Amino acid sequence: MNRITVAQAAAFLQTCEDAHILLHRAPDGDCIGAGLSLQAVLRSLGKRAKVLCADPIPPRFSYLLPETPEEDFPAGCVIAVDVGAASLFGSLEETYGSRVQLCIDHHISNTFYAEQVLLEENASAACEVLYRVYREMGVPFTEQIAKCLYTGMATDTGCFKYSNTTPEAHIYTARLMQDFPAIRYDLINREMFDVKSPARIRAEIAMLSNMEYHLDGRCTIVWATLAVCRENGVDEKDMEGLTSLSLQPDGVEVGITAREREPGVFKVSLRSSDSVNVSALCAQLGGGGHIRAAGCLLRGTMDEVRRRLLDTVSGALSP
Amino acid sequence: MNRITVAQAAAFLQTCEDAHILLHRAPDGDCIGAGLSLQAVLRSLGKRAKVLCADPIPPRFSYLLPETPEEDFPAGCVIAVDVGAASLFGSLEETYGSRVQLCIDHHISNTFYAEQVLLEENASAACEVLYRVYREMGVPFTEQIAKCLYTGMATDTGCFKYSNTTPEAHIYTARLMQDFPAIRYDLINREMFDVKSPARIRAEIAMLSNMEYHLDGRCTIVWATLAVCRENGVDEKDMEGLTSLSLQPDGVEVGITAREREPGVFKVSLRSSDSVNVSALCAQLGGGGHIRAAGCLLRGTMDEVRRRLLDTVSGALSP
Repeated sequence: MNRITVAQAAAFLQTCEDAHILLHRAPDGDCIGAGLSLQAVLRSLGKRAKVLCADPIPPRFSYLLPETPEEDFPAGCVIAVDVGAASLFGSLEETYGSRVQLCIDHHISNTFYAEQVLLEENASAACEVLYRVYREMGVPFTEQIAKCLYTGMATDTGCFKYSNTTPEAHIYTARLMQDFPAIRYDLINREMFDVKSPARIRAEIAMLSNMEYHLDGRCTIVWATLAVCRENGVDEKDMEGLTSLSLQPDGVEVGITAREREPGVFKVSLRSSDSVNVSALCAQLGGGGHIRAAGCLLRGTMDEVRRRLLDTVSGALSP
Repeated sequence: MNRITVAQAAAFLQTCEDAHILLHRAPDGDCIGAGLSLQAVLRSLGKRAKVLCADPIPPRFSYLLPETPEEDFPAGCVIAVDVGAASLFGSLEETYGSRVQLCIDHHISNTFYAEQVLLEENASAACEVLYRVYREMGVPFTEQIAKCLYTGMATDTGCFKYSNTTPEAHIYTARLMQDFPAIRYDLINREMFDVKSPARIRAEIAMLSNMEYHLDGRCTIVWATLAVCRENGVDEKDMEGLTSLSLQPDGVEVGITAREREPGVFKVSLRSSDSVNVSALCAQLGGGGHIRAAGCLLRGTMDEVRRRLLDTVSGALSP
């Protein structure tokens, strides 16, 4: 095992040069906060650091971007944050997949594709792990770093709501709030969790109206088909956080959200309300993730995808 | 001013006997958590303590109830928690309104109706204030007390999402999680924030579909009329947390939810996304609350209520 400690990761970062920091495709708040905070920390030490991602960073995260972007430079070292498998690099996998020197992650499904891995599978967020690394390094935080770390911990825990929330996530958040009282954390949360475009609201109405209840109401499926998206005028950026709808009904144990990426290709997200390990279920379907939030990619018609999902889920429900 | 300190409130509670603890009508998680935790604390000191409320405690809070209910006894002292005005006692106002000895609260609109008032208007929740009081008293916490305090702080902050969230709320939560790791905080949050009855989901679809956008989209109104509730089979217990819908659309500054209590009587909730002080607006309409979450009761037709609300809100929006 190539697992390293917080102190070893901190030592690596102190000595590394010209870092290429890799995010996973379709980056979320934790991955973006992790990558941009690491860039800021390394630049504060006088190093060059660049964040790379197969997909663009959604505009609603623009408040986390540095004031001055980094110019291009060849990689002196390659670091991945919040990326559990090389395949998640997307179009960057070919260039970087086999040359990641350090991966800092919290996904229980991490494949140890990197030379060195700082993996804390009980951490609420990659940003929680990085908070410890930066403290070990002794780097002073800036308002931008604080916003990045807060965004990562808040988004990956559903604003401290889910079972992955740790006491440390609360303690670190309290310290950030005390040290940076001027940050409008509430407006970050509003932007991350509450604000919806009119198109998204229309799409939610359509998807809630057609939510499927299976297995005696213990499993739901919410379909975000290309047709629903087209009819309501929603695009990719309108669809984040959609997965919480599937767990709303009382009694649901596994909530499934199936987003049609292209005809016959579904990005499937599984959420567990309590005891079912959806990371294990997604592993059976070629995916991975966390115990209560995981995903996979399935191909086929809606009927085929539905049958495959229900076959897998029904085996995991207690009698 | 009859304001007292945390230490003075703690001293009062140490010496009081036979406490009647009053909640506000339509009690929420913070009020219920405050009252039941205070009852548990006083009973742990060998005192008799009883929680009274004009309305029943909703069944979803039953996990906070004590194992053995308290028998009836005449009041030796009267304490109100989370109750900003005597009128909020509802049907209990006549008996208790003028004889409250101690009020522990965090509402900026508190009317100082009690003999002594421990008011911390910057606290996230009454339960945050009570956490400090109990620590001052030196009372050991039990799992039940921890659940009460967590529920209060989590529900009043929207799970640490809103602007009233304090560093202390995060710190106290971290301590509760560390001292009581067996509590399923995630299931409390699921019950409080995420689970919805099929009737509620149907009603939300109807209300979202008919959400009104006013004042250039800066003000929304969501109507929960008796007709919508009847058509979708929702009752009182299905309607909590409904007020967050009104702030979902991007650009909304004041979100209004109007629930028809009886024909021509609306319980109106105002939510502010950023700069508008809705406590001041509700004061103009005979109500009160917090700066970003307040309420009032309005009588009239939908047209009359709408006009009154929009007249009030439009004066508060910046040009």
